[in-house]
Amino acid sequence: MPELRKDPIHGRWVIISTERSRRPSDFQPEERKPMGGFCPLCEGNEDRTPPEIIAYRDNGTPPNSPGWTLRVVSNKFPALRIEGDLNREGEGIYDKMNGIGAHEVVIETPRHTETLVTMPLKGVENVLRAYRDRIVDLKQDQRLRYVLVFKNHGVAAGASLEHSHSQLVALPIVPGRVVDEIEGAKNYFNYKDRCVFCDIVRQELQQKSRVILENKSFLSIAPFASRFPFETWILPKTHYPSYEKMESSLYEQAAQILSDTLKRMNWVLNDPPYNYIIHTSSFSGHESEHYHWHFEIMPKLTKVAGFEWGTGFYINPTPPEEAAEYLREAK
Amino acid sequence: MPELRKDPIHGRWVIISTERSRRPSDFQPEERKPMGGFCPLCEGNEDRTPPEIIAYRDNGTPPNSPGWTLRVVSNKFPALRIEGDLNREGEGIYDKMNGIGAHEVVIETPRHTETLVTMPLKGVENVLRAYRDRIVDLKQDQRLRYVLVFKNHGVAAGASLEHSHSQLVALPIVPGRVVDEIEGAKNYFNYKDRCVFCDIVRQELQQKSRVILENKSFLSIAPFASRFPFETWILPKTHYPSYEKMESSLYEQAAQILSDTLKRMNWVLNDPPYNYIIHTSSFSGHESEHYHWHFEIMPKLTKVAGFEWGTGFYINPTPPEEAAEYLREAK
Repeated sequence: MPELRKDPIHGRWVIISTERSRRPSDFQPEERKPMGGFCPLCEGNEDRTPPEIIAYRDNGTPPNSPGWTLRVVSNKFPALRIEGDLNREGEGIYDKMNGIGAHEVVIETPRHTETLVTMPLKGVENVLRAYRDRIVDLKQDQRLRYVLVFKNHGVAAGASLEHSHSQLVALPIVPGRVVDEIEGAKNYFNYKDRCVFCDIVRQELQQKSRVILENKSFLSIAPFASRFPFETWILPKTHYPSYEKMESSLYEQAAQILSDTLKRMNWVLNDPPYNYIIHTSSFSGHESEHYHWHFEIMPKLTKVAGFEWGTGFYINPTPPEEAAEYLREAK
Repeated sequence: MPELRKDPIHGRWVIISTERSRRPSDFQPEERKPMGGFCPLCEGNEDRTPPEIIAYRDNGTPPNSPGWTLRVVSNKFPALRIEGDLNREGEGIYDKMNGIGAHEVVIETPRHTETLVTMPLKGVENVLRAYRDRIVDLKQDQRLRYVLVFKNHGVAAGASLEHSHSQLVALPIVPGRVVDEIEGAKNYFNYKDRCVFCDIVRQELQQKSRVILENKSFLSIAPFASRFPFETWILPKTHYPSYEKMESSLYEQAAQILSDTLKRMNWVLNDPPYNYIIHTSSFSGHESEHYHWHFEIMPKLTKVAGFEWGTGFYINPTPPEEAAEYLREAK
C-alpha cells in the first residue's frame, strides 16, 4: 500500500510509492528507454491494460475490444490505491495516511503515432470530454477532495509510454499548490471584490503583448510571471470555477484553442517535450466566487536546478512577451 | 537589466533574465554540450573570469593569478545585477522590480578533475568557509534580505560547467520556499515551544531507521517525507539558526559529514547528478528561536512531471528507510 507522508515543517505531502519501488540499480544514468516495440495502449491490445472504466466506442463493440476512439483505464502501476481506508496516524512528530486515491490513464487515440497536435479536432474534444466525465464520476467518492488532470509528453517531460495519453489522479487532500492558488485568489477577491483570473483576462486583452490567441470563449497567453520559457495558460474568458461544470458547447471551443496552441508550440519549438495540467476547483466547491479553472502548459526546455529547489523562484531566460510573439506569429 | 516579476495569484516571484535571453533556436533538443575543452575555471585562466571577490591563496601570490586553492568570482552571466535600485512598480494588476542582487560562483578547486568527493577534507572545509565568508559580507548590503547557497553537479542537475563549483545568489526578497519553511517552523514553535528541526534530530536519533551517519555535531538523514529517491538532509544536532554564525570548529565537522555523505551517494548511485542547497535564516534574524539551518541534497534520478507541477506533491519510489540503509551500509 502506498503511503502519504507529511513534511512536519512545510506541511508538504509526498507519496511513498511502493508499487514503483526502486533500488539504486534501477536508476539508469540516462533513463532513455528505446521507444518503439510492443505498445499496450494500441488498438488490439486491450487485454494488456486494466479493464476500461469508460470508453468512447463504435456502436455495438463490446468493452475491452477494438472499435474505440478513446479509453480510460486504471494505471497499471498506480501511485495511489482506490481500495481501503485512509487510516490517518502519527509516528512521533510525523503524520501519515494510506495512499488512497484514483490513478487513471486516458488513452487519447487508438493509433500509436497520433498526438494531440496531429489528431482531428473532434479527437481533442473527446479527450476534454473524457476529463469531464471522469471528474464528475470521481467527485462522488466521499474520501476524495481533488482531482488533477495532467499530461506528460515526451521522455524529458516524464512520459514513460510513447502512445499519446494523459492521466488523472484523485487525491484525499487538496494539494498544496492548489491550496496556495485558491487562497491567493481568495485574498485578491476579499480585497478587490473581483476574480484575479477575470482581471488577468481583462488586462491581457487590453495590453495584447502576451496574448497568443483567442476564440469566442477562451484566451491563450504567456503569463506575466512565466516560470518557464514558452509557458502558456489557457483561460475561459468568463468566470467558470469548475472545469466539469461548463456548458457542453465550451469543450469544443476549449479543444480548438488547445489544439491550435499546441500546434504553434510544436512548430516554433520543434515538437518539444511538455507537461500540461488543469487547475480547477476542489470537490468542496467553496471557491466558486474567486477561483477560475485554467490550463497551464509547460514546455520542458530548461532544467530545474538548485536555485529553484532552494527558493521556489524560477529563472526564465525568455521574456513572456517574446514567447507570445513567436507563438502568435507561427503558422 | 533583469526583472523580478510577481505572480498575482500565488505571490510567486520569477526572474526574467535578459542576460541569458534565449530564442526558440537556442533550446537544443538535448542540451548536451560536449564536455572537455577550454575551462575558464581552471588555474592559469584567471583572466577569463570576472575578478575574484575573495580567494584562498598561497602567501604572496597576487589576486587573479595562479597560486590559489579556492576563488569566488561574480557570475559572468548573472541572474541578478548588483548595481542599481529596486524601483518597485506596478503594471496594472501586476507587480515588478528591477532584478537587483548578487550572483557569485565559488570555484572549489584549481584542478579540473577534482570534485567534492575526491578532494581532501581540507578542500571541502575551505568551500564551507567560503560560503560563510561571502554570506557575512553580503549581509551588509541593505537592499538584500536573503542569500541562497547551492550547487548543481552534473549536466542533468543543471551544471553548465564541468569544473567543480557552487553558487550564491543574494536576493532582495526572502524567497517563498524559505518563507514557507520559516513560517511552518514558527507555527510548530508556537504550538510546542520547541524547534521542529531539533525535534526531527531527536526522533531520528531515537528511531535510527532513517539515519545515514552522524558525527559529534551533525546528523545526516533520509527525511521522513523525502520528495526524491535518496534525498538527504544534514542538520546540526544542536540549535544553530544561521549557517554563518557557527563556531569556527564546526565547519570542519560539517565538511567531514558532507564529504562522507557525498562519497556514499557517489558509491551507491554511481556518481549521480545532484543539487544541494543550504537553507539558513534570513538577514533579519527574526527566526532565531524556531529556525535551524541545514543542507538538503537532492540526487537527480527521476523526472519532475505534470503531477508534481500541478499539485506540489511528489511521488517518491524509494522509501527513505531503504535509501538510508543503502547509504548507511556503503563503504
